[in-house]
Amino acid sequence: MLDLIIVGAGPAGLSACLYASRAGLDVLILDMGAPGGKLNVTAQIENYPGLKATPGPEIAYTMYESALSFGAKMEYGEVLDIKVVDDHKEVVTAKKTYEAKYVLIATGTKERQMHLPRENELVGKGISYCAVCDGPFFKGEEVAVIGGGNSALEEAMYLASICQTVHLIVRRDVFRADKIIQDRLSKYDNIVIHFKRKPFAIMEENNKVKGLVLTDSDTGEKEELLVKGIFPFIGLDPMSRCVEKLGLINSEGYIDADENMETKVKGIFVAGDVRNKRLRQVVTATNDGAIAGQYIASLKEQE
Amino acid sequence: MLDLIIVGAGPAGLSACLYASRAGLDVLILDMGAPGGKLNVTAQIENYPGLKATPGPEIAYTMYESALSFGAKMEYGEVLDIKVVDDHKEVVTAKKTYEAKYVLIATGTKERQMHLPRENELVGKGISYCAVCDGPFFKGEEVAVIGGGNSALEEAMYLASICQTVHLIVRRDVFRADKIIQDRLSKYDNIVIHFKRKPFAIMEENNKVKGLVLTDSDTGEKEELLVKGIFPFIGLDPMSRCVEKLGLINSEGYIDADENMETKVKGIFVAGDVRNKRLRQVVTATNDGAIAGQYIASLKEQE
Repeated sequence: MLDLIIVGAGPAGLSACLYASRAGLDVLILDMGAPGGKLNVTAQIENYPGLKATPGPEIAYTMYESALSFGAKMEYGEVLDIKVVDDHKEVVTAKKTYEAKYVLIATGTKERQMHLPRENELVGKGISYCAVCDGPFFKGEEVAVIGGGNSALEEAMYLASICQTVHLIVRRDVFRADKIIQDRLSKYDNIVIHFKRKPFAIMEENNKVKGLVLTDSDTGEKEELLVKGIFPFIGLDPMSRCVEKLGLINSEGYIDADENMETKVKGIFVAGDVRNKRLRQVVTATNDGAIAGQYIASLKEQE
Repeated sequence: MLDLIIVGAGPAGLSACLYASRAGLDVLILDMGAPGGKLNVTAQIENYPGLKATPGPEIAYTMYESALSFGAKMEYGEVLDIKVVDDHKEVVTAKKTYEAKYVLIATGTKERQMHLPRENELVGKGISYCAVCDGPFFKGEEVAVIGGGNSALEEAMYLASICQTVHLIVRRDVFRADKIIQDRLSKYDNIVIHFKRKPFAIMEENNKVKGLVLTDSDTGEKEELLVKGIFPFIGLDPMSRCVEKLGLINSEGYIDADENMETKVKGIFVAGDVRNKRLRQVVTATNDGAIAGQYIASLKEQE
């Protein structure tokens, strides 16, 4: 039986893997995708202390290398369920069931959908949740970014360097983003800000996005905006379904933990963006992972 | 008046400075020494996620550059007292009194002394609390390291690469250090472990260290050990004297905070090793600083 299974190979999971395996634990880390989580879809990180502004995927690769340098293994798999069985845990994926003494949930969050008709079918056909990944497909075109927070503004600026015009669709009449980001945005003359508008429907042609129908938040009036790409950045949803049956998630889907990152189910821990906390940053994710990894190692030593 | 004064330019203070100044705050960071704190006396850091094994001073320099890249200033000075005056704070150094709306204590910890006669006078004359700084002065000599924790063992291994013999003096009959560190230590054949011994007196000649008198923890018997250098790594004391009058420190000298890193005195925050918490690592220090810096910026926005 393994000492520890970590679900999710983002910064929190990789940091926990580094700490726990360096302390001698037999660790397996599971993820559905490439290690690094959201780092892989972030062009530049400029506020991770100890690094100069660095491309996200480069940080991801360094974290991955360190995490596996003390004997831990990584496998690909979507975790469907986690069960408490006697004194250990079962981690169920579509292909296989794993057993471990301790489990750490580090599954992160995913971008919230607009919940418009045909939204799912048009992903990859004009709808994208990752400007860095898909921006280059819209070179010289008009695109829309939905949202008024840090992510929306940052992605809009990234797209403005590639696309002809970026339409920024903001529900309220102010931004939620930090002042420094708003200041930067104001320097782009090919970003058109549409305050008090929300997406009502997606316009399509030949199974591809050709525009958005917007609603005026005050009057309810509709207007059409012709764009080839739509990038929604309207929030995040925690990826916590695998522990739903264990009763670990709060009303918003996040998981509570104590100061050692342990949940109310003994032996199950949580770290990173999926944890119920205030500030979700790379450095707060790696912090959570380090605390959980080191604490689990100390429990193992006491056995 | 400044928005924020940060007391201490270690990883916690520099991370807070990065976050707060990037969010638009007018920040001053004060320290008695070089920016980077204990990073400057750490040969290699191999467990800071996102970095390969890197010399501590190199990480310190990168953190310092980032922290000051958004307009914050740093000044040298020892903070003697912090006062609450009306709706702001006064930060008193020997030379000057500064005013700020918010103050963050990120003063860290310092190595505990052995409290032996003449210990203070012999610092720099054979006694050192930093193997990386002073090890090279003892090339080819015999030295003693006091302690059984991670720091003691790591410093002993570092010294073993420079000195002829390293005597490791351990109070108990086991190490407190992590297993991985103990395993590494066992590969050094010029480290001699003395279990169940504690320092009783320093032997000196011509105002320089020439040895240690040790006590057997069981029998109380004394023995002499001839060494040119003594490196005590027996624990850490929090540097919290500047907030003693404000009643912020617990019985061990550490400072309690809520999840935003705010102390029980409104507007005074704490981050890093001086905070009352479980795991003291570079990544947990930068985490604290990021949370405090971002939260203080959000308070300022609400003013």
